[in-house]
Amino acid sequence: MQNDQTNQPLKCLKGISFHMASFTSSDISGWERFYRANFINSLTGFKSVSLIGTVNGEGQTNLGVFSSLVHIGSNPALVGYINRPVAAAPHTFANIQATGHYTINHIHTAFIDKAHQSSAKYPADVSEFEEVGLTPQFLDVSPAPFVLESRIKYALSLEQIIPISLNDTFLVIGKVIYAELTDILPMEDGFLPIDQAGSVCSNGVDGYYSAELISRFEYAKVKSKR
Amino acid sequence: MQNDQTNQPLKCLKGISFHMASFTSSDISGWERFYRANFINSLTGFKSVSLIGTVNGEGQTNLGVFSSLVHIGSNPALVGYINRPVAAAPHTFANIQATGHYTINHIHTAFIDKAHQSSAKYPADVSEFEEVGLTPQFLDVSPAPFVLESRIKYALSLEQIIPISLNDTFLVIGKVIYAELTDILPMEDGFLPIDQAGSVCSNGVDGYYSAELISRFEYAKVKSKR
Repeated sequence: MQNDQTNQPLKCLKGISFHMASFTSSDISGWERFYRANFINSLTGFKSVSLIGTVNGEGQTNLGVFSSLVHIGSNPALVGYINRPVAAAPHTFANIQATGHYTINHIHTAFIDKAHQSSAKYPADVSEFEEVGLTPQFLDVSPAPFVLESRIKYALSLEQIIPISLNDTFLVIGKVIYAELTDILPMEDGFLPIDQAGSVCSNGVDGYYSAELISRFEYAKVKSKR
Repeated sequence: MQNDQTNQPLKCLKGISFHMASFTSSDISGWERFYRANFINSLTGFKSVSLIGTVNGEGQTNLGVFSSLVHIGSNPALVGYINRPVAAAPHTFANIQATGHYTINHIHTAFIDKAHQSSAKYPADVSEFEEVGLTPQFLDVSPAPFVLESRIKYALSLEQIIPISLNDTFLVIGKVIYAELTDILPMEDGFLPIDQAGSVCSNGVDGYYSAELISRFEYAKVKSKR
């Protein structure tokens, strides 16, 4: 699966330290594409990974894995995700444009395999729900399906699509119009212990991780060192 | 610290199920602001959290924690982050605009407390590096300082700043021009085992987590269920 270029980074050891490796932008642009995708997707650290549920104008449901979610603001509650170029990721994007609605559903340890399988390129007239074995859940708050098996899920209304001309991707921004929690409640200060719900995060293009709380910290204030 | 509204979500239990709680957009907009910030920042799942290093025109270094990083593309290697409204988060943003350069540095378990402290609102003429006890590291590839203590770090050149008028934030997009790894190497396929470097992720506004690999999955292909 990997070609000769896969081994290229080992040549990049600069000898500054035995344990240090450095990579320039020309190294990166010269790599085989899967190698580069894994490297760059790991370089940016652990990522949110969730399932986006949509429906088209004919009622055909769609489900896809997205690991490019980003918090944009809390008031109003705005969440963004990066949609790849339309040709590479057409269905979720088209459905959101058509209906103005979508759901985002946490992935838990119990169904990572099913969630990951929804990233396969199924035709538009096939529902990933049925293909991967997850259950669409319809609520009055949104025409888009939730994932029944997900314990932390929310519905969004489309607010804005911002084209990113640098690489033909899009920042899709939605407003949280509804949130639903199962077997988990907010703590006294609104914090959700999502690790206890078994929510996962991702790294690279295909690595899924559980997370364990190290600590919460107080709101940081300027303090004198002296 | 919390006011009476803190308990409001408990009233939102709709009785659909003893273990289920639901929240509408009017519930969310009515919450006390810290409660809402924690809730919305948890709702979107685990997040990348890293330190962004910058320098201003006079050589004054700056360091800040950002948990709104997002992968935009691998070829070219583009990484985005959401900058809050300028009044709320001025220094990093101004420095990136002035110099066109910044670094992003993973936070590891060994220095979470120092990293979190860099989120305090220090004046522009104070270096968070010195205040929190992290070490600026200068390399020829960028005028911006890296964090010496970080084992996974990269330098970016500013590509585009996209204003998000919905809430006066900005999507800041940079191109990866250099990456440096210490005591960690890419795997055969480019994947970085960032958990082994002690990189952390975040949840809410102040929770830091370690992560443990559950599994990597093969590239998902359409398969018949039958």
